[in-house]
Amino acid sequence: MAFKIGLLGLGTVGSGTAEIIYNPQGRHPLLNDITIAKIGVKSLNKQRTIDIAAEVLTTDLDSIVSDPDIDIVVELIGGLEPARTLILKAIASGKHVVTANKAVIARYGQEIFEAAKKAKVYVLLEAAVGGGIPIVEPLKQSLGANRIETIIGIVNGTTNYILTEMTEKGSDFAEVLQEAQALGYAEADPTADVEGYDAADKISILASLAFDRQVKREDVYSEGITSITSSDIDYADKLGYVIKLLAIAQKPAQDQENLELRVHPTLVEKSHPLANVNGVFNAILVEGQPLGQVMFYGPGAGSGPTASAVVADILNIVGVLQSNHGAHALDPLLSSSPEKPAPIAPIDDVSTCFYARFLCADVPGVIGHLGTIFGDFGVSLASVVQIGFQDDLAEIVVVTHHVREGNFRSAIQAIEDLEAIKKIPSIIRVL
Amino acid sequence: MAFKIGLLGLGTVGSGTAEIIYNPQGRHPLLNDITIAKIGVKSLNKQRTIDIAAEVLTTDLDSIVSDPDIDIVVELIGGLEPARTLILKAIASGKHVVTANKAVIARYGQEIFEAAKKAKVYVLLEAAVGGGIPIVEPLKQSLGANRIETIIGIVNGTTNYILTEMTEKGSDFAEVLQEAQALGYAEADPTADVEGYDAADKISILASLAFDRQVKREDVYSEGITSITSSDIDYADKLGYVIKLLAIAQKPAQDQENLELRVHPTLVEKSHPLANVNGVFNAILVEGQPLGQVMFYGPGAGSGPTASAVVADILNIVGVLQSNHGAHALDPLLSSSPEKPAPIAPIDDVSTCFYARFLCADVPGVIGHLGTIFGDFGVSLASVVQIGFQDDLAEIVVVTHHVREGNFRSAIQAIEDLEAIKKIPSIIRVL
Repeated sequence: MAFKIGLLGLGTVGSGTAEIIYNPQGRHPLLNDITIAKIGVKSLNKQRTIDIAAEVLTTDLDSIVSDPDIDIVVELIGGLEPARTLILKAIASGKHVVTANKAVIARYGQEIFEAAKKAKVYVLLEAAVGGGIPIVEPLKQSLGANRIETIIGIVNGTTNYILTEMTEKGSDFAEVLQEAQALGYAEADPTADVEGYDAADKISILASLAFDRQVKREDVYSEGITSITSSDIDYADKLGYVIKLLAIAQKPAQDQENLELRVHPTLVEKSHPLANVNGVFNAILVEGQPLGQVMFYGPGAGSGPTASAVVADILNIVGVLQSNHGAHALDPLLSSSPEKPAPIAPIDDVSTCFYARFLCADVPGVIGHLGTIFGDFGVSLASVVQIGFQDDLAEIVVVTHHVREGNFRSAIQAIEDLEAIKKIPSIIRVL
Repeated sequence: MAFKIGLLGLGTVGSGTAEIIYNPQGRHPLLNDITIAKIGVKSLNKQRTIDIAAEVLTTDLDSIVSDPDIDIVVELIGGLEPARTLILKAIASGKHVVTANKAVIARYGQEIFEAAKKAKVYVLLEAAVGGGIPIVEPLKQSLGANRIETIIGIVNGTTNYILTEMTEKGSDFAEVLQEAQALGYAEADPTADVEGYDAADKISILASLAFDRQVKREDVYSEGITSITSSDIDYADKLGYVIKLLAIAQKPAQDQENLELRVHPTLVEKSHPLANVNGVFNAILVEGQPLGQVMFYGPGAGSGPTASAVVADILNIVGVLQSNHGAHALDPLLSSSPEKPAPIAPIDDVSTCFYARFLCADVPGVIGHLGTIFGDFGVSLASVVQIGFQDDLAEIVVVTHHVREGNFRSAIQAIEDLEAIKKIPSIIRVL
C-alpha cells in the first residue's frame, strides 16, 4: 500500500523531513511505502538545499489539505494562523495530520483533537515537544500502565544553553544572550524563550497527554530567566545546586483533580538526573506509579532531530493504517482527545521550597527577624547562610522547607518592611 | 471489546502485572477492556501478596497457552524451558505473546519471531531490556526514521550498583558484591550479572531491533567486572573517567554489513551522559542519523517498573486489535522479524581506545620501551603517566588513541616480555 504525504512548509524541519523520505535506505522499510505528493511553499523560486521536482511544489496550501490523493498532511509552517485553519481543513477532508506546531496545539489542541475524533483521523505531534526526543509517543504507547504523578522537563534549548554558559563561564545573562543570538540558538526577539512562554506551551501539551485532561494554555504559570544573575548561579553552586528553567506538571495527590502547572527557574541538586542536562539539550523526567522515574534525553531542536520526530509520527499512522486495511477505527493509544477539563491550582496554593537572597545592614539582628517573620507565616527554614558582601551590605541566603507559595510571599512582604533589609535581589524556587 | 490475558508466572513481575490490571483507575482507560482469565503457577497454595480468585489459578500452564478464550499470553516464568516451548505453543494457537524473558529471546528470538510472523501474531518484549525504561517500543515506534549507528547501554543494574559503590566508597569488588547480595541486588550465583552475560543477552536483543538483523547471542563478546579494582577506579577518576559496564552495538559504517557487539567494563568520560547513571539505574543511549544522540534512563528492574513495561506491551496489542477489528494484518512497526543475518566483527577487528596499567621497576627506561613497542604495532598513545607506587614498583598508566584490538593485544604480548615490566594488572577499554 502506498501512502501520500502533503507537506506544508519547506523550512528547516520541512527540508529535513523531505530528506528522510527521499532517502529511505537504511531506515525503516515502511518508508518505501511513503511518497511526498505535494509540498506547499511561500515561493516557488527560492533556492533549496534539496532537489524537489517542480510539479511537487505549490504555493496553494489550501489545495493540499483538500487534495483527495493525499492521506497525511504534515504541517510545518508554525505559528497560529494559517496553521490552525489548514489543520482543521485537513481534518475535515478526512486526512491524518502530523504537526510540529507546539503553539497551535497548546492553544487549539482541544478544538483540533475533537475535530479529529469526529473525523476518525489521527493528529500526531511528537515533534512539538523535545525536538528529536521520543516523549509524546512513549507517553501514549509505553507508559499507559502508570498513574502519572509528575512531569519535569528542560524543554527549551535556548534558555538551557544560556544558563549552562552562565554557569560554566560566569558570564551575565545579557552577554550570553547576545552570543546565543549570534550562534542561532536564540531568536532576534528572544521573548518566547527567555520568558518561559515556549516551555509553557510544551508543558501544557505534555500535561494534557499525561493526565488525559484538557489543559488551558493560559492557566500555566510562567516565569523566565531574565533576572537570574551570575551571583545566584554562584551561590547555588556553593549550596550544591545548579539553576535550570524547569517546566513542571504535577498531580499533588492521585485522588485530587487539581493539577499544578508551572515554568520557572529552579535550583536543582547536582545529583539530580536533570542537573547534568546541559547546553541546547532537552530532557523530560516522568514519574509515575508503579514505574518510578524515567528520563528521556536528547536534542531539543534542529532540522534532523525534529524531522526524525515528524517521520516517526508519519510511520505510526502508516503502520496502523496498513494493519487495519482502511477499517478506520482509531488505535486508542495513538489517538488522544481528553474529555475532562483540568482545574489548575493557583500558584499561591502550590507548595515548593524557596531560595531567597537578602542584602542587609545588620546581620545578627536580621537573622533573628527573618526567623521570626518566616515562623509567623508558617515558613520553616532549611538553612540560613551569610554568603558574601556586596557594597558593604551582607548577603544572606535562605533556603526554606516545603511551603505554600502564598505563605512565603506574605512573609517576604513583611520582611521587605524591615529597616535592615535593603534589597531582596532574588527569589528562586528549589526542586 | 474485552481482551483476555493468560498469565504464566506469578512471581515479582507477575504480581506487579496483575496488580496493575486489577487496579485500572487513574491509568490508561484501555485497561478497563482487559481481564486476566487464567494465571499459571507452580503451587496453588502459596501465600500471595495479591488476592486472586481461586478459579483463575492453575498449575496446568499448557492449558493456558491453548485456551481458546485467551487472546494474549504473558510469559513471566523466565529461563529457557519450558518458557520457549510455551511461547511457541501459544503462537501456534494464534495467541499474541508478551514476554519479559531476555534469555529466551536472545537465544530463540529468530525461531519465535518467524513463528509469530507465520501465525500473524505479535511477540512483544519491552520488559526484557531496561526494566521499566521504554526502549524497545521507542526503537520500533519512534526512531524508525533514523539510520541507527550505535547503541550503548548500562543494562545491568547489579553491576552498575557494584561499580557505583566501589567508586563512592572505595570498597573492593568482593565486599560490595556481598552487600549487594544481602540487599537483594545480586543473586546467590551472580555469574550471569558480573560476567556480563545478562548484558550480552540484552544488547543482542537491542541490536537485532535497531539494525533489523538476526543476531546470534553467542557472537556477543563479553567481559565482566570481576577483575576491576578500586585502584583502577581511582586512577580512572584522576584521569577524568568513571568505570561502567557498557553493552555496545555499533555499525562501524553505514555501507558495511558487519556489526560490532560487545560487553565490557569501560572508562567513560565524566561529562558523558552515561557517566552519571548510578546505582541500580539503567540507561540506553541511541545514536542515529539524522537524530544525533538520545538517551533513555530509568529503573532497570523491580516489580513495578518491569510490570509497567509488560502492561505497555499488552496495551499496544489491545490498541492495535481494537483499531483493526480483528482484521489480522500486523502493524509493521510493532511486529518485528529480521530476515537478514548480521555478521559480527571478531573482537580483534574492533577499533577502540585502551587504558592499561603496568607495574615496573625502571620508569624512564620502560616509558621509552613502551613507546617503541606500541609504535611498532601501530598503537598511538594519548597519554603516559606515572601515577603511583605499589610494593616499590612504579605504576604507569597508558591511554591509547583508537587502535584495532588485535594490534593492541600483540603490542601487549611484546611488552610482557620486557625485563622491567613486572605485571600488567589491568587493561580496560575507553569509550
